[in-house]
Amino acid sequence: MNKGFSLNQATTKRWPLDELVAGCVAAGVPAVGLWREEVAEFGSDKAAALIRDAGLAVSSLCRGGFFHEADWYDDNRRAIEEAATLGTDTLVLVSGGLPGKSRDIDGARRHVSDAIGALVPDARAAGVRLAIEPLHPMFCADRCVVATLGQALEIAAAHPSDAVGVCIDTYHLWWDDQVWDQIAAAGRAGRIAAFQLADWITPLPAGVLLGRGMPGAGCVDLRRFATAVHDAGYRGYVEVEVFHEDVWSRPGPSVLAEAYAGYRAFAA
Amino acid sequence: MNKGFSLNQATTKRWPLDELVAGCVAAGVPAVGLWREEVAEFGSDKAAALIRDAGLAVSSLCRGGFFHEADWYDDNRRAIEEAATLGTDTLVLVSGGLPGKSRDIDGARRHVSDAIGALVPDARAAGVRLAIEPLHPMFCADRCVVATLGQALEIAAAHPSDAVGVCIDTYHLWWDDQVWDQIAAAGRAGRIAAFQLADWITPLPAGVLLGRGMPGAGCVDLRRFATAVHDAGYRGYVEVEVFHEDVWSRPGPSVLAEAYAGYRAFAA
Repeated sequence: MNKGFSLNQATTKRWPLDELVAGCVAAGVPAVGLWREEVAEFGSDKAAALIRDAGLAVSSLCRGGFFHEADWYDDNRRAIEEAATLGTDTLVLVSGGLPGKSRDIDGARRHVSDAIGALVPDARAAGVRLAIEPLHPMFCADRCVVATLGQALEIAAAHPSDAVGVCIDTYHLWWDDQVWDQIAAAGRAGRIAAFQLADWITPLPAGVLLGRGMPGAGCVDLRRFATAVHDAGYRGYVEVEVFHEDVWSRPGPSVLAEAYAGYRAFAA
Repeated sequence: MNKGFSLNQATTKRWPLDELVAGCVAAGVPAVGLWREEVAEFGSDKAAALIRDAGLAVSSLCRGGFFHEADWYDDNRRAIEEAATLGTDTLVLVSGGLPGKSRDIDGARRHVSDAIGALVPDARAAGVRLAIEPLHPMFCADRCVVATLGQALEIAAAHPSDAVGVCIDTYHLWWDDQVWDQIAAAGRAGRIAAFQLADWITPLPAGVLLGRGMPGAGCVDLRRFATAVHDAGYRGYVEVEVFHEDVWSRPGPSVLAEAYAGYRAFAA
């Protein structure tokens, strides 16, 4: 048994946080995954109090990382503080892409590794674990040079497992024939910090960021992922995290109900 | 030294074949890579004679594969015949995606392997080598379940190297940190059947098929690829293969000149 379903806020991006929290309580959802921009807009202390008073857990905060940006160090230290304020032990890191006009992907990956190393002391001091999230290779140039679970695990291995783990998102990893062995290896190393469900649907929209499908809408064997992650020893929350204009344009309660049903169908 | 530059016809999709051939002769280009649809439209015997009389080589024919389709066997046997008619020894295979509403990616990959095995006798009889092309993982669902060079090599390994090889396309493989070892392994096994240059540019367009950049326009370390492929022993033609609406809307001679310059800059 995992800890249960968590609604990642990005799935219902236009649902105001206070309504989202009330909706989760009404639906019996135990946890939410939050995003920094939305939290900042609401006020992080106010958000923390709202969620705590509602009895909800915060499964993760998205996102730190983007290490190709000049202010990555200060920004990620702020992200760690925000995670601590919100009472979550997991900060998801999306590494960032290639800086400027660079073609040096190896160099960019080394920088990600160094940057995470620089943040470990702050993360440990705050009781927040850094969860390296490999994104689909179609985001490699502009968003995340960490493109496989294998790469994420390699970077994590240099640090204590209570400080650095990985985030397993079905949308990003389903195509990789090595992912099953890597999930098992991540489990043995105690590295699975977060688990997120989304489905792969086609055609992809322009820019490809908002192309995810709700669980069950696409071609990903989500049950196989949930079983693999469970067999690897993961017992945390299972987030549903879908970015899609069609999903965002629907009422929050309807999307929440469908996301929760997706969790029950594939990962409960 | 490789055999030189080859213009893949898809780069100048709207350039009529007779003009394309004349343009290649005028520019001193030794070879072209062809596509079945365009060849069929022109007439394959007529195309073969035109190209032969112009003194051009045909570096490859695109594409066989699409093994998720019902008529894959007959269609691929026709593709092998067409390759032989055109006088090329290389038929590029794009494996096809998941059939129907399937979530069984392992099953789809096994089917690709079986299908290639079924075609090997025809290919050998025709003197045509099947070149398995891994496509970028963003095409895994609907176009090509073979998503890495490692997978392509694994499928090829079951067959003689003169019958089944791989096609290395920079656009599809640049994100993969394992690709350098795999190119070296492909060379040792005598499996490199084709090498194609295209660059990665963002943002991707809707549907993502027509998002490629001309060599030098993007973030791929093309010289590193050309060096790795050369060091692995490949001495064949180097095709430039770019699909992009902006490129297609330009006059053929201008695109040819830019593609040839890209070859000279990165792979000559």
